[in-house]
Formats: sequence, structure tokens, C-alpha cells
Amino acid sequence: MQSSDRLDLTFAALADPTRRAILARLSGGAASVGELAEPFDISLPAVTKHLKVLQRAGLISQGREAQWRPCRLEARPMREAVEWMESYRRHWEQRFDRLDEYLRETTKTSRRPPRKKK
Amino acid sequence: MQSSDRLDLTFAALADPTRRAILARLSGGAASVGELAEPFDISLPAVTKHLKVLQRAGLISQGREAQWRPCRLEARPMREAVEWMESYRRHWEQRFDRLDEYLRETTKTSRRPPRKKK
Repeated sequence: MQSSDRLDLTFAALADPTRRAILARLSGGAASVGELAEPFDISLPAVTKHLKVLQRAGLISQGREAQWRPCRLEARPMREAVEWMESYRRHWEQRFDRLDEYLRETTKTSRRPPRKKK
Repeated sequence: MQSSDRLDLTFAALADPTRRAILARLSGGAASVGELAEPFDISLPAVTKHLKVLQRAGLISQGREAQWRPCRLEARPMREAVEWMESYRRHWEQRFDRLDEYLRETTKTSRRPPRKKK
């Protein structure tokens, strides 16, 4: 899978409060589907559906143990997503810092001249 | 808006390669809709639709200048999303480090010494 497709799946998987809560719960350790479903007021099939989305994104994996198939977090997709965000965040936060500085400097003088038409 | 709803919108907005490319472009500075559309092989209305998603998520804002309505990045939603991810990532990467350590230790000790030839 392309890194861009992986990011699509990761971010789409994170765009849901139940799925984020499941990931938060799993960050404390592996858990069965039943344990994961417990705090939510939704059906087990609904939880299973959310788990499938997380699994497709590679954010969790499920064990093959017959009785207790524990779900576990997988760190890699999250790491890639944070790296994508961080690379730009650093860039634009620097820009905002510079902009702040610029605005402080120029507030008392004059407004920016309008952009020239090409 | 609740912080959870904001995260939903931010992550959903990030789950698209065109929208991520638009944000990457804007991290270099403000740009008009036309300038943002240029590198993409999609219609202007399609780009406008993507911009609306980014705007609804608060990731960009659009100026009110009559002639040139530049789009700009807004750092706050991105910062919140990174903070959410980082808080759990730190937690589980520590877990993975401990697991790595545990596995290294146990493979070392459980490895049987070669049998002595009699």
C-alpha cells in the first residue's frame, strides 16, 4: 500500500470518537472484543465494525488464540500520521511565530499595501 | 463545538490526499483558490469542495479581500490533533519498548545452551 493510502485509512479511522476511545483503551494493554465493547452503549456488531475499520488501517491487530482473541495496538500507522502532521506543523508554527512578530512590529505603522494585480 | 467533534472533523479532513496536499502547499504561505487548484487535475468546483471541508474543520480560513481571497492555514486544530495522537503514542511506544526489552531478555535466557556431546 502507498504511504498516501495508508494515511487516508489512518486519518479516516481516527475520525470517530468510538474508534478513538477504543485506541485509548488499547494503549493501556490488549483487550478482547467484549472488554472493548463494555463501556459503549452500542451493539457488539457495531463495535466489531469499528474494529474492522481500525484493523484495515493497521492501527490494531487481533490475535489468533481460539478462546480469547485479544486486540492490540500497532504503533506504525500512528507514527507515520504524527510524522506527516509534525513535518508541516513545525513549518507553519514557525511561520505563525514570524507573522506574530511581523504584526507586532507593523501594527502601529501602516497596513500592508494591497497586492498588485498581475 | 466539543473537542471530540473538532477532532472528528480534523481527522476526516486529513483523510484525503488532495486536502493534505492543499495543506502542505498552504504551509508555505497563503494562496488563492486558483493557485491551490493549479497542481491538481481536478475541476475548480472539486477543489472548492475540498476547501470547504478544510474550512469546516477550521484547518484553513479564507480572507475577505474582494479581489484576492487568500486561503490561510489555521494551526489550532492541527495542534489539537497532534496532541491527541502524541498523548497516546508516548504511552504505547513506551509499552512497545518495554515489550522489546522483555522479548530480548526472554529470548536470551530461554535459549538453551547447545547440548554437550557425550
